[in-house]
Amino acid sequence: MPTAPDDERVALSAFGRRVRELRKELGLSQEELADRADLHRTYVGSIERGERNVALINIHRLAKALGVPPGDLL
Amino acid sequence: MPTAPDDERVALSAFGRRVRELRKELGLSQEELADRADLHRTYVGSIERGERNVALINIHRLAKALGVPPGDLL
Repeated sequence: MPTAPDDERVALSAFGRRVRELRKELGLSQEELADRADLHRTYVGSIERGERNVALINIHRLAKALGVPPGDLL
Repeated sequence: MPTAPDDERVALSAFGRRVRELRKELGLSQEELADRADLHRTYVGSIERGERNVALINIHRLAKALGVPPGDLL
């Protein structure tokens, strides 16, 4: 996302940090979260690093896998 | 999104209805909301119809334009 303005990169990073935080609270590895959410492990890693402009369907999959309402990830 | 399971299509529809609801509360046209969010009017229309798997950056743009926290749209 090299062209995204600062506030947009911040939004992606904040989302990634929140996913990582909740994943660790549950004691899950990236691979275990990926399995639960039906996503690839490397994709989960890049989300946690704020490198992905994640879309609604995958936000919902992650929220379900993490046991939180989707809005809690934003 | 013809291959999305029912619950995922429901998530996109719910997001679209929420955007439309908040837009109307503000008395904005789709074009006015699109201008505020720096998106195209036809794109906003398709979001409201639940036809778009909207990603984080555009969720944040819409939330800012609607004056709500991004999590309130999910």
